[in-house]
Amino acid sequence: MNINTDALTILDISMPITRLMPVYKGKEHKRPKLSIDSDFSSSSAYETRLEMNLHTGTHLDTPLHMIPDGYTLEKLELSKVVTACRVIDLTFVRDKITDVDLQKFTFKEGDFILLKTRNSFEDILETDFVYLDKSGAKFLAEKRIKGVGIDALGIERDQPGHESHISLFESDVVILEGLRLKDIEEGEYLLSAAPVLIPGAEAAPARAYLIKP
Amino acid sequence: MNINTDALTILDISMPITRLMPVYKGKEHKRPKLSIDSDFSSSSAYETRLEMNLHTGTHLDTPLHMIPDGYTLEKLELSKVVTACRVIDLTFVRDKITDVDLQKFTFKEGDFILLKTRNSFEDILETDFVYLDKSGAKFLAEKRIKGVGIDALGIERDQPGHESHISLFESDVVILEGLRLKDIEEGEYLLSAAPVLIPGAEAAPARAYLIKP
Ligand SMILES: [Zn+2]
Ligand SMILES: [Zn+2]
Repeated sequence: MNINTDALTILDISMPITRLMPVYKGKEHKRPKLSIDSDFSSSSAYETRLEMNLHTGTHLDTPLHMIPDGYTLEKLELSKVVTACRVIDLTFVRDKITDVDLQKFTFKEGDFILLKTRNSFEDILETDFVYLDKSGAKFLAEKRIKGVGIDALGIERDQPGHESHISLFESDVVILEGLRLKDIEEGEYLLSAAPVLIPGAEAAPARAYLIKP
Repeated sequence: MNINTDALTILDISMPITRLMPVYKGKEHKRPKLSIDSDFSSSSAYETRLEMNLHTGTHLDTPLHMIPDGYTLEKLELSKVVTACRVIDLTFVRDKITDVDLQKFTFKEGDFILLKTRNSFEDILETDFVYLDKSGAKFLAEKRIKGVGIDALGIERDQPGHESHISLFESDVVILEGLRLKDIEEGEYLLSAAPVLIPGAEAAPARAYLIKP
């Protein structure tokens, strides 16, 4: 590998964490709280404190999120989330991404797929966001992809058994949520989405970015 | 760029965030708090909440940390922290890294330097950790490097004017703290240390890793 890092095009696909950011279904306890631990009125250093649910903004889920004996964050190998990936354009989907929507694409074992939808363009993240239907999740799990990302705060909504999460986790597919893909064209990239290392946790925030080949 | 990501050697250099982790000078309010928002006893999903000062574990500082009108996190270009870097071995330093200690190395404009010290081996992070003395910081700032990282929770201690932070910030040198470099050999790597995107903040956690060329 010989990378001239000055020449890399790095594309940020992360959501800013702020008091007013969209949160899953608009639930109040999911809004992050930022406060000041010290500022220059009484100290020589400025320091901020953050309190938030770990499923805030751009983050990675591990199986414990939905499966009682599922693995937690320290078990995730970084090669799962620092990897080649492919962005596919699903902005034509109105409500949910089904197996039928995905059949027009080809997938191969080990792919990391980012689902670009109208969530990246419309103000629907807290309400009727486009999600990956259980049929679509099962379809991707059967293709043996290694990971899937979406531009919604959850990969599914209103499926009582959380079937999309569970199909993916049972096939060891990593789930990346809260991406911002508005400015990203369909195609192949290098993905970096390494989550903050919180042992025992079922999720953690990540600063996700793409590198254009 | 043509990377076969399956063949990459990814080296994690991040500190795990836990209740019992070392924090700056052992201050109680700097210990992170992890709590459960929901678990399987009452819900179908497991969710964790995190509360912490943003200078916890592996994190990046921006100038607002020490300079009242210094810039904040959203202004940081990712190319500053996704970049070629060089690890230098300063494990021979007993107390603080001075200009004299650094003179045996060569530096060039735009380098990102990681300082490997005995902090990575000994249980001194909360007490008398090795730090970058103001003379060492001034020396590096004058070499016009782009960033410096250290395996301590702060790049300095017990310098009343925070001269090391300020010399570096005034020369637009990014500061990365809380690295774990025990298993990392001196040499050149690709560094990724992209901080969680918290606009307005003076610091943010990062999952830092190296890629071996
Ligand atoms: Zn989640
Ligand atoms: Zn700091």
